Amino acid sequence: MTAVVKTAPAPGSEVREVPVPEVGPRDVLVKVKAASICGTDLHIQDWDKWAQGRIHPPLVFGHEFCGEIVERGAAATTVPVGAFVSVEGHLVDGTCYQCRTGNAHICENVAIVGVDRPGCFAEYVAVPEGNVYAMDKGIPPEVAAIQDPFGNAVHTTLSGEVAGLAVAVVGSGPIGCCAVAVAQAVGARRVMAIDIRPYRLELARRMGADRVIDSTKEDPVEAVKADTDGEGADVVLEMSGHPDGVKQAFKMLRRGGRISLLGIPSQAVALDLAEDIIFKGATVHGINGRRMWRTWYQAQALLRSGKVDLRPLVTHTFPLAKIHEGMALLKQGEAAKVILYP
Amino acid sequence: MTAVVKTAPAPGSEVREVPVPEVGPRDVLVKVKAASICGTDLHIQDWDKWAQGRIHPPLVFGHEFCGEIVERGAAATTVPVGAFVSVEGHLVDGTCYQCRTGNAHICENVAIVGVDRPGCFAEYVAVPEGNVYAMDKGIPPEVAAIQDPFGNAVHTTLSGEVAGLAVAVVGSGPIGCCAVAVAQAVGARRVMAIDIRPYRLELARRMGADRVIDSTKEDPVEAVKADTDGEGADVVLEMSGHPDGVKQAFKMLRRGGRISLLGIPSQAVALDLAEDIIFKGATVHGINGRRMWRTWYQAQALLRSGKVDLRPLVTHTFPLAKIHEGMALLKQGEAAKVILYP
Amino acid sequence: MTAVVKTAPAPGSEVREVPVPEVGPRDVLVKVKAASICGTDLHIQDWDKWAQGRIHPPLVFGHEFCGEIVERGAAATTVPVGAFVSVEGHLVDGTCYQCRTGNAHICENVAIVGVDRPGCFAEYVAVPEGNVYAMDKGIPPEVAAIQDPFGNAVHTTLSGEVAGLAVAVVGSGPIGCCAVAVAQAVGARRVMAIDIRPYRLELARRMGADRVIDSTKEDPVEAVKADTDGEGADVVLEMSGHPDGVKQAFKMLRRGGRISLLGIPSQAVALDLAEDIIFKGATVHGINGRRMWRTWYQAQALLRSGKVDLRPLVTHTFPLAKIHEGMALLKQGEAAKVILYP
Amino acid sequence: MTAVVKTAPAPGSEVREVPVPEVGPRDVLVKVKAASICGTDLHIQDWDKWAQGRIHPPLVFGHEFCGEIVERGAAATTVPVGAFVSVEGHLVDGTCYQCRTGNAHICENVAIVGVDRPGCFAEYVAVPEGNVYAMDKGIPPEVAAIQDPFGNAVHTTLSGEVAGLAVAVVGSGPIGCCAVAVAQAVGARRVMAIDIRPYRLELARRMGADRVIDSTKEDPVEAVKADTDGEGADVVLEMSGHPDGVKQAFKMLRRGGRISLLGIPSQAVALDLAEDIIFKGATVHGINGRRMWRTWYQAQALLRSGKVDLRPLVTHTFPLAKIHEGMALLKQGEAAKVILYP
Repeated sequence: MTAVVKTAPAPGSEVREVPVPEVGPRDVLVKVKAASICGTDLHIQDWDKWAQGRIHPPLVFGHEFCGEIVERGAAATTVPVGAFVSVEGHLVDGTCYQCRTGNAHICENVAIVGVDRPGCFAEYVAVPEGNVYAMDKGIPPEVAAIQDPFGNAVHTTLSGEVAGLAVAVVGSGPIGCCAVAVAQAVGARRVMAIDIRPYRLELARRMGADRVIDSTKEDPVEAVKADTDGEGADVVLEMSGHPDGVKQAFKMLRRGGRISLLGIPSQAVALDLAEDIIFKGATVHGINGRRMWRTWYQAQALLRSGKVDLRPLVTHTFPLAKIHEGMALLKQGEAAKVILYP
Repeated sequence: MTAVVKTAPAPGSEVREVPVPEVGPRDVLVKVKAASICGTDLHIQDWDKWAQGRIHPPLVFGHEFCGEIVERGAAATTVPVGAFVSVEGHLVDGTCYQCRTGNAHICENVAIVGVDRPGCFAEYVAVPEGNVYAMDKGIPPEVAAIQDPFGNAVHTTLSGEVAGLAVAVVGSGPIGCCAVAVAQAVGARRVMAIDIRPYRLELARRMGADRVIDSTKEDPVEAVKADTDGEGADVVLEMSGHPDGVKQAFKMLRRGGRISLLGIPSQAVALDLAEDIIFKGATVHGINGRRMWRTWYQAQALLRSGKVDLRPLVTHTFPLAKIHEGMALLKQGEAAKVILYP
Repeated sequence: MTAVVKTAPAPGSEVREVPVPEVGPRDVLVKVKAASICGTDLHIQDWDKWAQGRIHPPLVFGHEFCGEIVERGAAATTVPVGAFVSVEGHLVDGTCYQCRTGNAHICENVAIVGVDRPGCFAEYVAVPEGNVYAMDKGIPPEVAAIQDPFGNAVHTTLSGEVAGLAVAVVGSGPIGCCAVAVAQAVGARRVMAIDIRPYRLELARRMGADRVIDSTKEDPVEAVKADTDGEGADVVLEMSGHPDGVKQAFKMLRRGGRISLLGIPSQAVALDLAEDIIFKGATVHGINGRRMWRTWYQAQALLRSGKVDLRPLVTHTFPLAKIHEGMALLKQGEAAKVILYP
Repeated sequence: MTAVVKTAPAPGSEVREVPVPEVGPRDVLVKVKAASICGTDLHIQDWDKWAQGRIHPPLVFGHEFCGEIVERGAAATTVPVGAFVSVEGHLVDGTCYQCRTGNAHICENVAIVGVDRPGCFAEYVAVPEGNVYAMDKGIPPEVAAIQDPFGNAVHTTLSGEVAGLAVAVVGSGPIGCCAVAVAQAVGARRVMAIDIRPYRLELARRMGADRVIDSTKEDPVEAVKADTDGEGADVVLEMSGHPDGVKQAFKMLRRGGRISLLGIPSQAVALDLAEDIIFKGATVHGINGRRMWRTWYQAQALLRSGKVDLRPLVTHTFPLAKIHEGMALLKQGEAAKVILYP
């Protein structure tokens, strides 16, 4: 089959022919209908420090996708051949304390599709049957393919109360834009999106932001306060991972508010804990992945009911073999989700 | 001033002139802009058993209203003359365990405007300054006047999770119709409304129900299950108070679901606790009044953001003196909220 | 091996030789160290209506036990031979909505050890590897054998807040007595135990009740109120399943309180929903089984830390072959937990 | 009356005669039975940077105390003369969003007894009637006097689940020692206390710590992990406010755990948000003051039930006039709570 392979411990990747993956006894083989490029894939492509420490070439990478089950292992019984599925990329052990107490998304022994094992930039992927989620066939493949980032947004947004509250989303990349749509769909009274790129802010606006704030042009903390009668946002969703963004995120949080952190800073961030968390009586949630499987049910419900429409996020589509064109667009910052068809 | 007075311990009431209420040191005097008729007012009018045990004529009744503050007591300082306000009708003691632990809505020593003290079917009402809630002036008076029942609906609906869930509302009177709108606004994946009157079901449809169920024509338990892949509703909001409605409400609840009870049965209801609560692992919430003041903030946020529009519920308006015409309409079941202008 | 077998669809059971169970690929074989008799076992023994509808003889019954793993199926890898384990008797499907959202204890497709498949009144039992919980070897077998009812009590008690609250336990059988101990261990300010049998009340006292109430001698609702400054219990744990007990349980609940229902009424119970749930703003939890696996971790923590001591509940021990003597004692009401050694 | 007065904007304070405070219409006059010295009082005494920015001499300071109500203002009706009371030192406005939604402890307009208005190092203090909490007369005055720090500990510890969990307390000053006792009382499976002073660790041991860790002698992160099977503490209570302590607190937190921050760092703290909060899926709570009044009810319940005994914390007592001797002891680190009797 055709696949995108990280062939060597260096920048770059190749489109080449590789064998179809073997299907273990409790695995299913998924024929990929649509895949999508994540920021993580760009790290692997560019062979950054994180990639150097984690990835073992050769590796078929990619982890955002949907497809159809075409084969099942001998012991796989829970999902039928022919099912249209999206896939939770986190393979969990099922036996650790976290898995056994409803927190599998922070399993102590996780392996990730397209990072620690072969991924979805290919015609076929094999995954454990327990990792697939059956999608409604009415959901378009390009939307079904981006359940991973959408799930991040759903998990982050719904990690606390939203109805009737003012929500600020710091960082308006694809996940931030999803979070804007989710916050609106679940009754936020006002949704403010912050970024430094006009392209992304325009997208946030299309996804439902009541107010977009370009933090290169105005102080986002002041702008959020001005937009909330001086109080700050009841809920802040930090999705930039940038130290300045994180600091601003805490400063724009209302007394008694909730801030959920999804963006991953690459260095330590100096926080004024006294003013920003303690005196405020704030609640901070660290967010990792998506809840298995509450988040997936919530995500599908928001899509099927029409309360969230992800299609504006799909800005470009390519055949799989042209993946490097899609990657180039993303690096230029002029794309949101780029979909690949094998 | 002109007021509607329960003059004697018998059915009926009179529109007559009475003195403007005295304003205590911590009270404010509200000039009524719009009032609305509640089912409770019909009980008082008809002098039913509950009214006989609770009401002490003569009494100006009515408790749903909005207006403008025109005078303040000597020690009242927290809200200015000229403010446009709605009023929480539950006067609480502020010192009991419930009040002191965030549950003032179930205060152990409550007195109710228009029930235990003079009400709003009048040109003026005096209430403690602590009982007013400043409304945005952009909210129309007929909407500001119905914050009490809207607040019941907001409290009931938001007493648990809703986002992404299937919600059944049993009883589609004005509060049920408000609940339909709230559930949609906060991200329910499907909202089903149940009643026995086509008029109310039509209103529920206009307020956003995805599915209306006439329980005189189809079994509502089966209908809800059919509408939810056989599972039942994740959330049931019981607003009928009818023993049959209550029993059906429990039967249509999904395993692991939440049912919130607002409707008040006038007799004991025999429940199959084993099947309906215990084996299901259900959660049941008793709902009384509105949270002071979380519910009010939520309610105003839903209105100001445009996520809920209550205007379709205002089916009739009358001058205050024609209150008995409005009551007659309500008894015929051909009205939702009837607004009175003093 | 020797086992206790329900041989025919009629009252009674026999101690006889049967084959050691076969071990499926993902099963483990447990050599039973100690087993315990549950009320459910008496229903099976007596062939009551429930048993007639559920049990298919011949069946080795019994489901409360601990033991040592002596064999593993070919695909069982998560728990080693030699481990000292207790067993969750609910076999769940792992794929339904409940299982996938952290509520496996209310799985839609449950099968129960000793009810729907061979049980523990035997020398050996085979169970899926996913159903065993490794016990600390310092826990005595007679205590490890009763994790099922202890888990019921832990789940019920910890289904809401307890610290600093007044707790009433209605029904002081073994589970009620466990709940008394748990409530004390987690900081209840006062624990009241109610029953109709002096034997059980004496046991509740030994397990830590501050006050025991014989409801044949005093009105338990009045007694609980008298013991709580007239307010009622903040938390009520209903473990009698008797309609009178259930009604009293609701009446003794404080305004704003939480009642958790574990006892299973065999008929409908007429409740005054208005006074007992709605006006009170009460929360009702239906409790089924034990949370997998949060409850198990909590239970083991309470035992290992010495905060709960279950040994006073073990009132009698017998060799397995004398099970009928143990059953007789239980029916006379002069025993709590009867332990059987194969 | 005799009082301790900050007379000038400089280090030091004087014991001198001042007028008995005036009693406003809704105030009560409390005759102080016992007062206690807080770290804040040492800041005022030493005139540190915080004090210079906040305190306006002359000021009678001190805010931890109990006493008897000896006089009421004309409009004060809710608590009788003769009542034995402790006092919540945070005077809140009662009208802001926080106050109106159950979060008065983070009121937007707070004034503090002994900081912003006359305090308790005196024979009499006047406070609003709404700020007193009636204590059971069986509670000794030296214990009733330290409800403020005890309340901090109760609020911090109970800001999340504790039963069955491993709890690490970072910083074993008086509040940390209270937290140790509370965690044990509400069912922690293991309580570890960390400090750099043997005196405090010895006290933590007496208050119930299972394990004390001198972080000058062993790495507290490794020690906590070693004590929890390598997992870290489920719950961390940060009460040191020291940047190193805070960093260690996050590092010793288990995946999925909860950390509550009470200690106030005087500078920004650089946190590894990715590892310490985000990937872990941690929850962080900022803790300010005590919940009005849930914390007070919980605190009194723990004392009255005998589940917590604070007497070991009262290491020294002095007449009020010898306050400077008590302060000296505290600065030497050889005292926990120093009680003053006017």
